[in-house]
Amino acid sequence: MKVALMMENSQAAKNPIILNELETVAGPLDHQVFNVGMNSENDHHLTYIHLGIMAGILINAKAIDFVIAGCGTGQGAMMALNVHQGVFCGYCIDPSDAFLFNQVNNGNALALAFAKGFGWGAELNARYIFEKALTGERGEGYPVERREPQVKNANILSEVKASVMKGNFLESLKGIDQELVKTAVSGERFQACLFEHGQDQDIIAHVKSLIA
Amino acid sequence: MKVALMMENSQAAKNPIILNELETVAGPLDHQVFNVGMNSENDHHLTYIHLGIMAGILINAKAIDFVIAGCGTGQGAMMALNVHQGVFCGYCIDPSDAFLFNQVNNGNALALAFAKGFGWGAELNARYIFEKALTGERGEGYPVERREPQVKNANILSEVKASVMKGNFLESLKGIDQELVKTAVSGERFQACLFEHGQDQDIIAHVKSLIA
Amino acid sequence: MKVALMMENSQAAKNPIILNELETVAGPLDHQVFNVGMNSENDHHLTYIHLGIMAGILINAKAIDFVIAGCGTGQGAMMALNVHQGVFCGYCIDPSDAFLFNQVNNGNALALAFAKGFGWGAELNARYIFEKALTGERGEGYPVERREPQVKNANILSEVKASVMKGNFLESLKGIDQELVKTAVSGERFQACLFEHGQDQDIIAHVKSLIA
Amino acid sequence: MKVALMMENSQAAKNPIILNELETVAGPLDHQVFNVGMNSENDHHLTYIHLGIMAGILINAKAIDFVIAGCGTGQGAMMALNVHQGVFCGYCIDPSDAFLFNQVNNGNALALAFAKGFGWGAELNARYIFEKALTGERGEGYPVERREPQVKNANILSEVKASVMKGNFLESLKGIDQELVKTAVSGERFQACLFEHGQDQDIIAHVKSLIA
Repeated sequence: MKVALMMENSQAAKNPIILNELETVAGPLDHQVFNVGMNSENDHHLTYIHLGIMAGILINAKAIDFVIAGCGTGQGAMMALNVHQGVFCGYCIDPSDAFLFNQVNNGNALALAFAKGFGWGAELNARYIFEKALTGERGEGYPVERREPQVKNANILSEVKASVMKGNFLESLKGIDQELVKTAVSGERFQACLFEHGQDQDIIAHVKSLIA
Repeated sequence: MKVALMMENSQAAKNPIILNELETVAGPLDHQVFNVGMNSENDHHLTYIHLGIMAGILINAKAIDFVIAGCGTGQGAMMALNVHQGVFCGYCIDPSDAFLFNQVNNGNALALAFAKGFGWGAELNARYIFEKALTGERGEGYPVERREPQVKNANILSEVKASVMKGNFLESLKGIDQELVKTAVSGERFQACLFEHGQDQDIIAHVKSLIA
Repeated sequence: MKVALMMENSQAAKNPIILNELETVAGPLDHQVFNVGMNSENDHHLTYIHLGIMAGILINAKAIDFVIAGCGTGQGAMMALNVHQGVFCGYCIDPSDAFLFNQVNNGNALALAFAKGFGWGAELNARYIFEKALTGERGEGYPVERREPQVKNANILSEVKASVMKGNFLESLKGIDQELVKTAVSGERFQACLFEHGQDQDIIAHVKSLIA
Repeated sequence: MKVALMMENSQAAKNPIILNELETVAGPLDHQVFNVGMNSENDHHLTYIHLGIMAGILINAKAIDFVIAGCGTGQGAMMALNVHQGVFCGYCIDPSDAFLFNQVNNGNALALAFAKGFGWGAELNARYIFEKALTGERGEGYPVERREPQVKNANILSEVKASVMKGNFLESLKGIDQELVKTAVSGERFQACLFEHGQDQDIIAHVKSLIA
């Protein structure tokens, strides 16, 4: 899988720690990691709002398969990612959350808390979460005998979400204040990820038009 | 506040336990509790998809100020509620989550896990979560010196969410498969809550048209 | 109750935060708080070993009814307190732990983690733990229908512990390297607590002989 | 390592689940698992008091290197194991607890909660805890730069514990109500483990004298 890590301003200083854990886990599993958010407190300023827009673009352009996002409590990132079509973001406190989210909900993003509960052992907890988030089959159900209704509900959720939205993702993206989108797409690492791996030329063209 | 509790089929048997804890906490705080989801395994069948629709209707019709929802892990309910305009649903594992969500994000719904981690003491944890979710001021920021950007981001999130949606809530509601909406609004307790406390006559009229 | 807070060197800088939460909770409940461990990184150096000895002395001298201790993960403090006769120390991560420990085990000490998991919201979690640790009846059983075997087991545990020990507490205290004990009793706040509230003159006399 | 699993009456029905997770993890790591407590609700009745005695015997006789014990909340088992000389039992809620306990405290037992928080995903959490409890080096310190004082404190704790006890382990074992000890050693699986792997003939002889 192609996995994007995206962190915002309040916890940007922790990006190297989290990135290191993510790469340590993802490497042996043959996943590629893209660190597309802030990588230090001095990087260009992103909020969880921007992370949501970034996740929406990367997932809908099929540049990325899975997103790890977060903020102080993770709740802002979780809600901001879930605003967008095609993004299904769980909230993850411990490794079993990651496993269950994969099996029950089969989403494509996780929000983590990078300040709440983040003390000794927090980088270990992140690593163990990544181990379970990035390993094994998805959508198998939990308990396994509930697989069928769980898969069905995940599909209905996807339909309901699409049905309340303003057209397809690109149309809804254009509905957002374009200053927010401009900031969201302003990072070099984000752009490299989108332009090199994105498969939706319309989304890419729109992003390019904003950064021209 | 008017607080709605909504539970779906997989954990419906626990509704009396959770309702009891919620009422025990809400009563002395002068909050009214509305138990609008399943109240036993024999009640009409609701999934987390329906809970999302129900929360959208009750909040947008201003029948309800705050929603407590949940499912097995809480993740499905959380994502399903966050689909809808005007609904800002956090995910809550422990009491400090509830406090932080109120202060940082100032949302209007919480999703809880009613099976994951639900063993001895789970009803206590629910009670303590309710104590913190339903007490005190909201939107004060945490840490308090970050109040300003946190309030600002919560407002921007609300705007972004509105801007990707198909018109207002009622329009987006009409965009959803109406069979799903019919099931979501089929409960007597839900209807009583909406019809007696709802303040948006257009939403009420649409719901009434579905159950005619 | 008389409640002692005792913190060691690795997390001493957090003492003012924890003490503030403890006093905020204990005051309205008419409990007295004694801050008998390190109150800053510059205070005389104590390890969790010393905390164990201090708890043993204060509880066995009946100077104190309940001890809140901790260290980085809390595990060292928990084991060090449990070494001593008459001290029954639980480990507490969340508020329901505190309630359950009171009801099931009815011990007289809790060890907390002051670094593990200690990020945003940690002082809230400490406060909520104190609320449940210091409120209400103890030894009522959980679930309540298991009260009888739970009370019985708590009593047997106390007997077993006494039966493996070298005589009474004072004899076992004298069995410990007295340099360790000297350091443990060297603090002014500890001494004031013991000398003003202790009810066992033999223990007090022994401590006084060490600091002469 | 030789790893003993010991469960008591209140959660005995869960023994097959926990044993399965433990064996799944321990096998590939070349650890041997000994299921020496209750294996169903119909097995001979053990309380956490007995688990403590059993752990004391197996560890001091060097039949076993590491013990996994537990009860409803885990607190009773934790305190009961820590009563005994040579047994250093941590309390473990999540996988990082297990890792930190190994690195910081380097004990030889863990107590788990088999009812508190035991809902969906609990067997996963147990598995992930075992993964971290049974893998890798121990006593390396955490953070690693604190290794030296942490190792030193673990050693001092061991000395203090020995110094408050009635002679060596066998003497303190004889100090306990022998009816309790008889029940503790009454299980066939326990006896097989002790008699086949124990290295202290005096402890073995005493146990044999009780079951004669």
